[in-house]
Amino acid sequence: MVKPIENVAIFGGTHGNEMTGIYLVKKFLKNPHLLQRKTLKVFPFLSNPKAIELGIRYTEIDLNRCFALEDIENLDNILYEQLLAKTIHQKLRTNQINFLVDIHSTTSAMGLTIILSDKNDFHLKLCSYLSLIHPEVKVLYYVSKEKNQLLRSNTELGLTVEVGAIPQGVLEADLFMKTEKVIYSLLDYLDKYNQNKIEEKSHTLIIYEVFERIDYPRNKEEITAMIHPNLQSKDYQPINIGDPLFMTFDGETITYQGDSTVYPVFINESAYYEKAIAMCLTKKREITLNHG
Amino acid sequence: MVKPIENVAIFGGTHGNEMTGIYLVKKFLKNPHLLQRKTLKVFPFLSNPKAIELGIRYTEIDLNRCFALEDIENLDNILYEQLLAKTIHQKLRTNQINFLVDIHSTTSAMGLTIILSDKNDFHLKLCSYLSLIHPEVKVLYYVSKEKNQLLRSNTELGLTVEVGAIPQGVLEADLFMKTEKVIYSLLDYLDKYNQNKIEEKSHTLIIYEVFERIDYPRNKEEITAMIHPNLQSKDYQPINIGDPLFMTFDGETITYQGDSTVYPVFINESAYYEKAIAMCLTKKREITLNHG
Repeated sequence: MVKPIENVAIFGGTHGNEMTGIYLVKKFLKNPHLLQRKTLKVFPFLSNPKAIELGIRYTEIDLNRCFALEDIENLDNILYEQLLAKTIHQKLRTNQINFLVDIHSTTSAMGLTIILSDKNDFHLKLCSYLSLIHPEVKVLYYVSKEKNQLLRSNTELGLTVEVGAIPQGVLEADLFMKTEKVIYSLLDYLDKYNQNKIEEKSHTLIIYEVFERIDYPRNKEEITAMIHPNLQSKDYQPINIGDPLFMTFDGETITYQGDSTVYPVFINESAYYEKAIAMCLTKKREITLNHG
Repeated sequence: MVKPIENVAIFGGTHGNEMTGIYLVKKFLKNPHLLQRKTLKVFPFLSNPKAIELGIRYTEIDLNRCFALEDIENLDNILYEQLLAKTIHQKLRTNQINFLVDIHSTTSAMGLTIILSDKNDFHLKLCSYLSLIHPEVKVLYYVSKEKNQLLRSNTELGLTVEVGAIPQGVLEADLFMKTEKVIYSLLDYLDKYNQNKIEEKSHTLIIYEVFERIDYPRNKEEITAMIHPNLQSKDYQPINIGDPLFMTFDGETITYQGDSTVYPVFINESAYYEKAIAMCLTKKREITLNHG
């Protein structure tokens, strides 16, 4: 069993143009009572103040790629976000944070997604609880190529909340309210966990596991095709061999040539054009869990 | 009667993160035969190359606010976009452009919108023709507060094509293809017009006329409410007195208190947060026209 979760950090604005997390954290900062739970201290943080002020993803380098320990410890890393990562890392230590939530948004139609980079029993039971209360919650297992670069990798326990579709720089009330509710349920769970009050309940949890990223077709640097209209906004829907993936600017269809049914996510995410990712392919797994 | 339209300019990338126009113009530059018409010369242009390369709206100042003649002639105006505006202005003169199309996209759900800043007979008949062929086309009459700042004000005849909802930095195949078709119909019309081949046809044209802009509720600089979920993506739908406009972060509703039915557009446009515009209110007018 994991020891009690005493100090929780909630981050918004790790990307300065993802407004849901930014305005949620601003709300929490103004109304700390909303985060109060019997057995927890909860710390809301705005991750990247300069990028938030400018309304851009980052000023010099993606903050959410700056947390590898060798980068934190490298004194030659002095870009704004690299320095910020060192401070955030220190802040987490100082406050003895043992659970971390990082709120993001995406231009992909991913609804309410929880991203895990570790499928330990604690995370799985928590996700199972959240998806029981909020049936629309989806769970994505996504380990980055370069491990531990992400803000969420700073603590053993923690997760990313990823909501969409929302354009960058836009607030949408509906997803704002839904995300807020998931955060409260999460804190409730941690509080119950600390008090050993989690009810036993058998539940099948579905997890989508990223196993591959696909780039847009390109000619040198330039993309030569768009996400196929049949695939746009179809995150988490199955695609089979022969199903359309892309459409060239001349209207030709490029199809999927893999060998099994897959479930794409992060389809047509704005910030991923520069990262050469048109979508991430996942496999769907079912896990049966007992709470408690 | 207007004299023949001989030289047409089509601009994309006046805002460097609005991908539909950028990739349409790139397609036209690679395939000039697509723009060939008997009586027309058509020039595709990428408006703001530096902003396009960086994937941002503008580098120093909004290019689409730099075209007032006093600004063009002011030799002290030396920001990147101000210099660019002078060059574009010169280019239009040199090529004797007498019709200009500027392609934009928006995070608001405005579908295929044609924006006019002059309701002359030529423009109205053209819009009437386009909305007959493409029934989803909407016509918006929108005169900026500071007149003639826009790219489209460089020539007596011309219009803006505004498509959405699309997040900034994202290409959507469906709207890309629809926009492309409208451009071709527009060129067909100009070509027919030059040959005196426009068929007479009576048609009722609906025009939405912007008469007011509304800001988000704010406390100093900070917004204190979001677009109400009932209003999100409801561009061109009627709102009446008492209908919800905003929702505060605490969930309270702020309603419309005007005195007649209005039709909002540019609801929750990402780039308009900094311009203090949450939406533009329009009145709906019907005009009966005879083509020819």
